[in-house]
Amino acid sequence: MKKHIYIYSPSGAVRDKAAFKRGIARLQALGHEVEVDPDALTSHQRFAGDDATRLAAIHRAVDSGADVALISRGGYGLTRILPGIHYKKVAKAVENGMAFVGISDFTAFQNAVLAKTGAITWAGPALCEGFGASPEPDEIMEACFDDLLQGQGEGSGWRQTLDRRKNAMDNEATGASLSRATSTFSIQDAVLWGGNLTVLTSLLGTPYFPEIKGGILFLEDVAEHPYRIERMLTQLLHSGVLARQKAVLLGQFTDYKLLSHDRGFKLQTVIDWLQQHIQTPILTNLPFGHVPTKVLLPVGAKSDLGVEGRDVMLVWGHV
Amino acid sequence: MKKHIYIYSPSGAVRDKAAFKRGIARLQALGHEVEVDPDALTSHQRFAGDDATRLAAIHRAVDSGADVALISRGGYGLTRILPGIHYKKVAKAVENGMAFVGISDFTAFQNAVLAKTGAITWAGPALCEGFGASPEPDEIMEACFDDLLQGQGEGSGWRQTLDRRKNAMDNEATGASLSRATSTFSIQDAVLWGGNLTVLTSLLGTPYFPEIKGGILFLEDVAEHPYRIERMLTQLLHSGVLARQKAVLLGQFTDYKLLSHDRGFKLQTVIDWLQQHIQTPILTNLPFGHVPTKVLLPVGAKSDLGVEGRDVMLVWGHV
Repeated sequence: MKKHIYIYSPSGAVRDKAAFKRGIARLQALGHEVEVDPDALTSHQRFAGDDATRLAAIHRAVDSGADVALISRGGYGLTRILPGIHYKKVAKAVENGMAFVGISDFTAFQNAVLAKTGAITWAGPALCEGFGASPEPDEIMEACFDDLLQGQGEGSGWRQTLDRRKNAMDNEATGASLSRATSTFSIQDAVLWGGNLTVLTSLLGTPYFPEIKGGILFLEDVAEHPYRIERMLTQLLHSGVLARQKAVLLGQFTDYKLLSHDRGFKLQTVIDWLQQHIQTPILTNLPFGHVPTKVLLPVGAKSDLGVEGRDVMLVWGHV
Repeated sequence: MKKHIYIYSPSGAVRDKAAFKRGIARLQALGHEVEVDPDALTSHQRFAGDDATRLAAIHRAVDSGADVALISRGGYGLTRILPGIHYKKVAKAVENGMAFVGISDFTAFQNAVLAKTGAITWAGPALCEGFGASPEPDEIMEACFDDLLQGQGEGSGWRQTLDRRKNAMDNEATGASLSRATSTFSIQDAVLWGGNLTVLTSLLGTPYFPEIKGGILFLEDVAEHPYRIERMLTQLLHSGVLARQKAVLLGQFTDYKLLSHDRGFKLQTVIDWLQQHIQTPILTNLPFGHVPTKVLLPVGAKSDLGVEGRDVMLVWGHV
C-alpha cells in the first residue's frame, strides 16, 4: 500500500549523502511517495540548520499530512529546541494518523511530546542508518516498518541473554533478584516509553521528562562505557523513576570499549548491581538500539508484557 | 602549622601508586601528619573497594578527627553509594572543623552533603593528581590549600578569557547578552556551589541535588565534547536551575577533541548560545577544573562576587 513519507532533519547535519539517497531510493522502491523537506540537507555547524531552521522543518513535517514523518538521522540538536516545538500541533497530527518515527536524539522529541500531550510516536529507524544501510536494509526492521504502515504489528517477542543467568550462578547475592526477571509473570496496560538512555536522562528534572507511573521503560545506548550507563541508571534509580515502573527493558548497548582499569566491571555488572537495588524486573536483549535489526516501538502506548523464563512478549493494542 | 590529613578512597581504585606515594611524601614534607585509610589502596573492579568498603572508608574519614579529609583520587563510584552516607555525621564533623576536600566524582558527595545538611565542603585537589604531581605540585594549588589549613584564603580573583569578547564582535546576536558578563556588577551573600558538570547533572531529579536559589554555580569538566557540555547545560537551563542563580562561573573544560563534523561548533559557541537563553551572567575562566593550577572553593559557602569587565573577584567570608 503506497504511503506518503516525509523526510526531515531535526538534529545533526547529514554528512553521508550517499546513505541519504540510498534510503530515499529504497522507500521509493517499496512503492512509497517520499517527500523531502527543503532543509533536510542543510548544514549549520554540526546541526542540520540553525535552531529556527530545524524547528521550521519539524513544523513542516507536522503540517505535511504525511502518513509517516521520518527523521534523516539522529546526532544531537533536539534538546536545545524543545521549548520551541508546538506540542499541540504534533498531538493533532498524531490524532490525524501521522506516525513520527526516529531514534537516538529523537528520544528528546518523543518524550517531550509524551510529557506535554500524551501523544504516541514511534521509536524505530532513521532514514540514513536504516533504509540507507549498505548493501541492504535489515529485513526485520523493514518488516516492522511495513507493519506500522499497514496498521498491523501489534507486538514483539524476544529471548533474554543467557549471560545473565550464568552470572546469577556465579553470584549468590544476585541470584534472588535475577530470578525476578526470568520467572513467569505478566503485566497489563502499562505505558511503554523510553529510548536512548543518555538523551532520556538529559531530560530529567525538566518539563520534558514524562511522569509515567506503572510503565514499561525501554532503554538503549551507543558509545557509552558501562560506568556511564550505570551512572545514568543510578540517576533514574535515585530519582524514583525506576521504582515507579512495572518493568525495565534493556535494549542493545553497543560500541563501547572496556578498559584495563575496569578489572571485570562490565555491562552485566551494572545490570546485576541495579537489580539488587530495585524490585522492578530488568529484562535484557530487547531488539532495539543502534543496531540494524530493530523493532518499532510505540512510545506512550498502553502495552502488555509477558515473561516466561528467557522468553519475553511485548504487545500493544491497535495504536 | 602541622595539620592532621586523612587520605581515603571513596571512588575509583588507585592505579598510580607512585603518584599516591609522592603525594603522601609531599604532604609530610610540608610538615603534616598524614593518616592513610586502611582501604585507600583497595581495588574491586574499577572501584577502590566494593560499595560497603568505600562507605566504611568515608565514615572512618568522618570519625578520624582529622583537620582535612582528602580523597586519593576521583574516577567514578560515589553516586551509587550516596544513599548509604550518614550525612548528619558528615555535617557534625564539618561543624567540628573538618574540611572535606576533593574534585571530580567527589562533586556527588559535596552536593549531596549540601542538599542534605547545608554543610560546607571544599572543591580542590585530590592527593594523586594534586600533591602527587610530577615533578612538582602546582604552587598556586598548594598555596590555596595552605590558606585553607591556616584558616585564611577567603577569596580568589581571575580574568575572563578574551576569546569571549572577540566572538561577541563577530556575532551581533550575542553582543548584548555577552555584555552582561563583562559589565561592572556585584553580587552579595550568594551560596557558592557546583563542581563537575557531568557529576552534578547526574544528580538532577534526585534527593542529592541541592535546591539553591540565588546562588553562584561553578562548573568544570574533562573529556566531554562541547555538544555534551551543551546538552548538560541545557538540562540545567530547562530545569530552571540556571535562571535561579545569580551567576554561573565556568571553570576549565579540558581534554576533548573537536571533530570535522563540528564545522565551527566549539565551546565558545555553547557559551554564546546559553547566554542568549538566560539573564544570569555566565563568567568564564574560573581557575578550577582538571588542571594543575586550581583554587580551592567552599561548596555551600555564602560568597560575594565582583565583576569589572574581564576581572572577577570571588570572596567568601571566614568559613
